Amino acid sequence: MVKLGVLNGGADSPGLNAAIRAITLRAVRQYKMEVVGVLRGWRGLMDGLFVPLTERDVEGVISRGGTLLRISRTNPYRHPHGVERLLENFKRLGLEALIVVGGAETLSVAARLWIESKVPVIGVPKTIDNDVGGTDYSFGFDTTVNIATEAIDRIHTTAESHDRVMVVEVMGHHAGWIALYAGLAGGADLVLVPEHPVSIDKVCETIAGIHERGRDFSIVVVAEGACVTTDKAPNGMSTHASNARDEFDEVRMGGVGVQLGKEIEARTGYETRVTILGHTQRGGSPSAFDRVLATRFGVAAVDLASKKKFGRLVAIQGNNIVDVDLAENAAEPRNVPREMYDAALALFG
Amino acid sequence: MVKLGVLNGGADSPGLNAAIRAITLRAVRQYKMEVVGVLRGWRGLMDGLFVPLTERDVEGVISRGGTLLRISRTNPYRHPHGVERLLENFKRLGLEALIVVGGAETLSVAARLWIESKVPVIGVPKTIDNDVGGTDYSFGFDTTVNIATEAIDRIHTTAESHDRVMVVEVMGHHAGWIALYAGLAGGADLVLVPEHPVSIDKVCETIAGIHERGRDFSIVVVAEGACVTTDKAPNGMSTHASNARDEFDEVRMGGVGVQLGKEIEARTGYETRVTILGHTQRGGSPSAFDRVLATRFGVAAVDLASKKKFGRLVAIQGNNIVDVDLAENAAEPRNVPREMYDAALALFG
Amino acid sequence: MVKLGVLNGGADSPGLNAAIRAITLRAVRQYKMEVVGVLRGWRGLMDGLFVPLTERDVEGVISRGGTLLRISRTNPYRHPHGVERLLENFKRLGLEALIVVGGAETLSVAARLWIESKVPVIGVPKTIDNDVGGTDYSFGFDTTVNIATEAIDRIHTTAESHDRVMVVEVMGHHAGWIALYAGLAGGADLVLVPEHPVSIDKVCETIAGIHERGRDFSIVVVAEGACVTTDKAPNGMSTHASNARDEFDEVRMGGVGVQLGKEIEARTGYETRVTILGHTQRGGSPSAFDRVLATRFGVAAVDLASKKKFGRLVAIQGNNIVDVDLAENAAEPRNVPREMYDAALALFG
Amino acid sequence: MVKLGVLNGGADSPGLNAAIRAITLRAVRQYKMEVVGVLRGWRGLMDGLFVPLTERDVEGVISRGGTLLRISRTNPYRHPHGVERLLENFKRLGLEALIVVGGAETLSVAARLWIESKVPVIGVPKTIDNDVGGTDYSFGFDTTVNIATEAIDRIHTTAESHDRVMVVEVMGHHAGWIALYAGLAGGADLVLVPEHPVSIDKVCETIAGIHERGRDFSIVVVAEGACVTTDKAPNGMSTHASNARDEFDEVRMGGVGVQLGKEIEARTGYETRVTILGHTQRGGSPSAFDRVLATRFGVAAVDLASKKKFGRLVAIQGNNIVDVDLAENAAEPRNVPREMYDAALALFG
Repeated sequence: MVKLGVLNGGADSPGLNAAIRAITLRAVRQYKMEVVGVLRGWRGLMDGLFVPLTERDVEGVISRGGTLLRISRTNPYRHPHGVERLLENFKRLGLEALIVVGGAETLSVAARLWIESKVPVIGVPKTIDNDVGGTDYSFGFDTTVNIATEAIDRIHTTAESHDRVMVVEVMGHHAGWIALYAGLAGGADLVLVPEHPVSIDKVCETIAGIHERGRDFSIVVVAEGACVTTDKAPNGMSTHASNARDEFDEVRMGGVGVQLGKEIEARTGYETRVTILGHTQRGGSPSAFDRVLATRFGVAAVDLASKKKFGRLVAIQGNNIVDVDLAENAAEPRNVPREMYDAALALFG
Repeated sequence: MVKLGVLNGGADSPGLNAAIRAITLRAVRQYKMEVVGVLRGWRGLMDGLFVPLTERDVEGVISRGGTLLRISRTNPYRHPHGVERLLENFKRLGLEALIVVGGAETLSVAARLWIESKVPVIGVPKTIDNDVGGTDYSFGFDTTVNIATEAIDRIHTTAESHDRVMVVEVMGHHAGWIALYAGLAGGADLVLVPEHPVSIDKVCETIAGIHERGRDFSIVVVAEGACVTTDKAPNGMSTHASNARDEFDEVRMGGVGVQLGKEIEARTGYETRVTILGHTQRGGSPSAFDRVLATRFGVAAVDLASKKKFGRLVAIQGNNIVDVDLAENAAEPRNVPREMYDAALALFG
Repeated sequence: MVKLGVLNGGADSPGLNAAIRAITLRAVRQYKMEVVGVLRGWRGLMDGLFVPLTERDVEGVISRGGTLLRISRTNPYRHPHGVERLLENFKRLGLEALIVVGGAETLSVAARLWIESKVPVIGVPKTIDNDVGGTDYSFGFDTTVNIATEAIDRIHTTAESHDRVMVVEVMGHHAGWIALYAGLAGGADLVLVPEHPVSIDKVCETIAGIHERGRDFSIVVVAEGACVTTDKAPNGMSTHASNARDEFDEVRMGGVGVQLGKEIEARTGYETRVTILGHTQRGGSPSAFDRVLATRFGVAAVDLASKKKFGRLVAIQGNNIVDVDLAENAAEPRNVPREMYDAALALFG
Repeated sequence: MVKLGVLNGGADSPGLNAAIRAITLRAVRQYKMEVVGVLRGWRGLMDGLFVPLTERDVEGVISRGGTLLRISRTNPYRHPHGVERLLENFKRLGLEALIVVGGAETLSVAARLWIESKVPVIGVPKTIDNDVGGTDYSFGFDTTVNIATEAIDRIHTTAESHDRVMVVEVMGHHAGWIALYAGLAGGADLVLVPEHPVSIDKVCETIAGIHERGRDFSIVVVAEGACVTTDKAPNGMSTHASNARDEFDEVRMGGVGVQLGKEIEARTGYETRVTILGHTQRGGSPSAFDRVLATRFGVAAVDLASKKKFGRLVAIQGNNIVDVDLAENAAEPRNVPREMYDAALALFG
C-alpha cells in the first residue's frame, strides 16, 4: 500500500482543511493509499510528528478554518541538521510521496528538497496573498477578500453619515492583491499596495478632491506593506522601509494604517479613523470558491502522486486544473501588474 | 458626447448593480460619455423607459443585490412590432451603443439584433447558472454558490445529530453548476444535476451504502431541474419531464426536492427532510468575486464601446478579461461535463 | 468530589455547546466538581452512554452549532423499564445532580423524574421555538430568527424586481414566535402562525390589497404549523389538521408552504414562489445573544446544583438570570399572545 | 392631521432605519398622522432641514444600516441661539410631537427641551454601547456584539495554529458592555472595560498563566476606553487618561489596543498581534433582535405621541415595552456592574 504524506507550512489560509480532506478521500477511495499527516509543517517532519489520516478524520472539516495539521513557519534549511533529520524521518516512515501545501516560502523549500535531495514532492499553492506564480489563484485569497470587503461595506454604511476619511488596513506585506480586490469590491476611493509607491501628497490630494466634489467621506484601503512615501520616509512608511526598532514596532502592531491615518489627518484636516482587520482576515469558514479550489487541487495532487509526477505544482488556469514546474513558479512571486493597478485607480478616481 | 445605453434582462443576479456602476463610472470618467439606463429590460426599450445614469446614481450600489434598472423577461421577438418599436426608441434616443447585461436568452436577443438589425450591442454575461458559453464565469454564480453552501453547512451541523437523509434543492433548471459547486463545497454525499440522469434506484443505493458504513446522516443536493429517473417517470421527475399540469405545479412549487424526498423515504425507510432554498439564492449582497468580475466586465464593455467593437461578448478566461463573438457564444450553453460530474461523484463516494 | 451530570434532549438548538462549555468550566473551576456528559439524551441515560467533560473538551466549542453530546428524542416514560434503567444508571454512576438542557418535552420528563423519583435535576431551557414558560427567552431562538430574517432579506431583494408572491416557510409546529419575529425583522407583509387561525380568503385579500396599492411583490411568512383555514380544510391546512396519510406526507415534506403557495396562486392569479428553510434554521454558529444566554444559564445551573436547589428551571427575566419552578413552567407553553399578533398584523397592514 | 417629527442624533446605530420605518408606518396607518423627518439631528432642527416621510420612503429600509435621516453630533445648547432657532423651526413647522431617537447625550438634550421649553418629546434609546438607563437594551448593541463576536471567532481559528497573544480592540469609551458580551460570546480569555481598572501586571500574569497551563494562544478583548493601569500611567492608558497631545493621537487612532499590545509583548515575551475593529462595528445590516426592538420601540413611541404622553422614554423590560421618565434615565448611564464583570472573569479564568 502506497504511503502518502501531507504537510502544510506557513501561516493559516482558509481552505487548508478542505485540501487535506480531498487529499485523504482521493488517496483512500481511489487509490487505496495510506495517508500520513505531518504536524506543524517542516518542524513536524524534522521532529517526527505524524498522525494517520482516515476518512473519518476528515469528516465535517471542509467548512472549518484553521488546519487539522497545525502550522509552523520553520524552515529546515535554517536549522542545523534540519534537512538531514527531515530526510531520515521521511525514509524511516516509508513515505513514497509528500504533498506540500503552502505559500511561496514553503513551496521553495519543497522545490529545493526535490532538486537537491530527490524528495518526491508535489506542491499545492495556498496563500491569502495570492502571490504564488503559475496559477491564477491560490486558495485562501477569496475568503480573505470576502472578509475584507464585508468590513469595508460596514465602514461604508457608517461613513456615509459622517464627514470623514476611513483608513482600512488589510493584509499583504509584499503583494497588494487583497487590497486591490477588496478595494475594488468594496468601492473604495483609493488603494495603496506594496508594489507601486504613492506619495502621501498624492494620497491627500486625491482625498481632498473627493471631498471637494461633494462627497463627505472617503475610504482608503491600505495593504500592511503598502509603500507610501513621505519627505521623512522617501522609501515608504511601510514595515519594510523602517529600520529603527521603535518605528518598526509601531508599524507592526499599530499598522501602517495608524501612521497613514495620522498623516492624512494632519495634512488634510479631515477627521480620520483607522480600522486594522488583522488576523480576522485569516480565520473562519472558507468561501465556496476556496473550498472547491482546495478540493480540486487536493484531488489533482493525489492523481499526480499516483503517476509519480514529482516536482510539480498543481495550479488553476482558467477553469482547468493543470500542473506546472514547482521550482520555477515557487521562486517567482505574482505581483499586481502596473496596468491593473492604474486601471483600478482610474476607476476609483 | 457619445450616448451609451445600458440594459439588463432576465432574472436577478447578484452583481448587476456592480456592473451598472462600473459601466457608468468608466463611461463618464474615462470617456465623458452620457449614460442612459433602460428600465425593465427589452420591455423598457420597447416602451421607452429610460433614466439617466450619473456618478451620483451609482454611489453605494456596489454592495446591493437586485438591480437599479429593474428586470423583466420580455423578448421583443415574441411581441408584435416588438423589434420595430425597440429600433425606433433606440434611434429616437440617439444611442450610439448598447451594453446588454444578461444570461443566454437575453444575450441571444442581443446577438440577433446585432446580426439582423445592426444594433451596436456589446454583451456582458450574468447568470447565477453559470451556463453562458465563452467565459469561465458569469457573475452571480459565485454568490449563489456561497449562499447554497452556507445552507448545506447549517444542515450538516444539525444532520450530524440525527439519523436522516437531508435533501437540499438548489436552483438550476438546465445546468447543474450550482448543485455541483455547492455540493462539493458543502461536502454533500450526492449531487443530482439536469445534464446527467441518475435513477432513483442508484440514488437510494448510494444513500443506503453511506448509512451502512456507519454514517448516520447523508446530504443530497438536487438541482431544481435534475433528472432523476423512476419506473413511473423514466425520463426523469423534473419539471421538464412532466406533462400533466398537476404534477408540474407540484414540482414547480414544491420542487423536485419534495418528490425526491418522498421517494427516498419510501424506498430506503430513512427519515427524510427537504429544504428548498428558492429565491434566497438570487438575493442579497454579491460576493467579492462577483463584484470584481462585474466591475471588470463593465469596464471592458465600455472600452469596447469606445472602440466601436460591436457584436462582442466580454468574458473572463483565466485571469484575463477578453472578448468573444456574441452570437456564437450566446447560443451555446455551458453544461457540466460528464467527466467533471463523475470525478465529483467519485469524491462523494 | 461532587459528580455532576449534563444531558441534552430534543432537537438541535444553536447554543448547546456554549451551555455545555459554561457548565463544565463553572463546575470545574469554581466548585472543583467532576462533570459527566450523557450522550444522546435520555436514551444515553437509559443505556449508560457517558463521557467525561474537562476544560480541554470544551475548548473552542462555543462557536459551534450542533452538540458535543449528540441528541435523541427518546422519552424514557414511553420505554418499558425506561425509567428504571435510567435510575439505575444514575445511581451506579454516583451522580449527585443532573443538569437537563432541553425544550418543553425534555424538561417535562425532567420535572416528572424530580417529582416522582426525586432525581436531583435542574432544567435549562433551550429551544428555537422559544415556547418554554417562565423565561423571556430560550437559547437557540435568536440564531434561528437571524437565519430566517437573512433569508427573507435575500428574497426581498430579488422579489423587488418581479411581480410575485413569495411564501417563506419557517419552523414552528406549535408556536409562531419564529414566524412572528422573522416576519417583523424581515419586513414581511403577512405572517401566519399556529396559534391564531386565518382563512385563506383573508390571506388572499391582504395580498391583493398590497398589490393593488402599487407594490409589485409581497412576502408571506408561514410557520410550518400555521393554521390556515379553507373550505376544504376548515380546521386549517397544517400538519395537525390533516388526517389522510398522503396529505400529511406532502405537508410534512413539501411543507404547508407548498400547499399555501398553490392556493394563493390559484385564487389571486399572482405568480407565487415557495422557499422552505427547513433545517438550515437549526444549524450553524450560534448568535452572540444565544451564546451569552446559554453561558449565563449554564453558570446559573451549576450554582443551583452547588446549593442543591433541585427541581428548578433557570430562566431570564429582563436582564436577570433567575430560577423558577421546573414542573410548573415546563408544562405551560408560551404562545404568541393575540394582542401581539394583532399589533404585528396592523404594522404589516 | 397631527404632524409628527422624527429626529435621530449621535453616531450611527444599526436599527435606526427600522425605527424610522416603524414610526412612519404606525403613524400613517394607525393614526393618519403626517410624518416629518428632521435631517442631521439637532442641527437639522436648528437649520430647518426637513423631509416628508411616507410609507413609500421607508420601503425596504428595515434591513439597511446607516440612517435615512443622516446624523450629526450637534448639541443646540452649545450653539448661540441654538435652542431659540430650534424652537422657532419647531413652531413654524407646526409639529405637535417630536420623537427623538438617540443615545445618552441626544436624549439628555431632549429631556432638557421638554423640561425647560415644553417641547413635546418622546425618547427612543439607541446606542451600540447599551448604556442608556431604564431599559434592558438599546437597539444597535446586539448587532455590534455579533460583529465583534464574529471577528473574535475568526481570530480564534487562526490563533489556534500559533503561539500568540491576540488583542482585539472593540468600541466602548465609557461602558464595557460590548467588550463584555463579545468577550463572553467569543470565548475570550480576558476582557478589559472602562468601568473596572485592571493593572497591566495582572493582565500579563493572567496571560502567562494561560500559556503555562498548556494553551498556546490567548485572546484579550479590550474596550477602546478600557482602564489599564501601569506605573507610567497609574490612572489607565486609555484615551481619557492621556493628556499629552501626541499620546492622545496615538491612542485615538492606533487605539489603546496598540499600546496594550506593545506592553504585553514587552513584558511577557509572547508575540502579540492587534486587531482594531473600529467602525466596522457600527455598520451593516442590523440583527433581527435589533430590528424587532427598534420596530417595537417605534410603534410604542407613536402610541405615546397619540396619547400626548410626553417627556417619556420607551424602554424594554423583560419582554415588555414600557415607558419610563426621560429626564431621569437619560442622565443615568448603565455601567457594567462589578459582580457581573467578576463573574465573567471567573469564567474566563
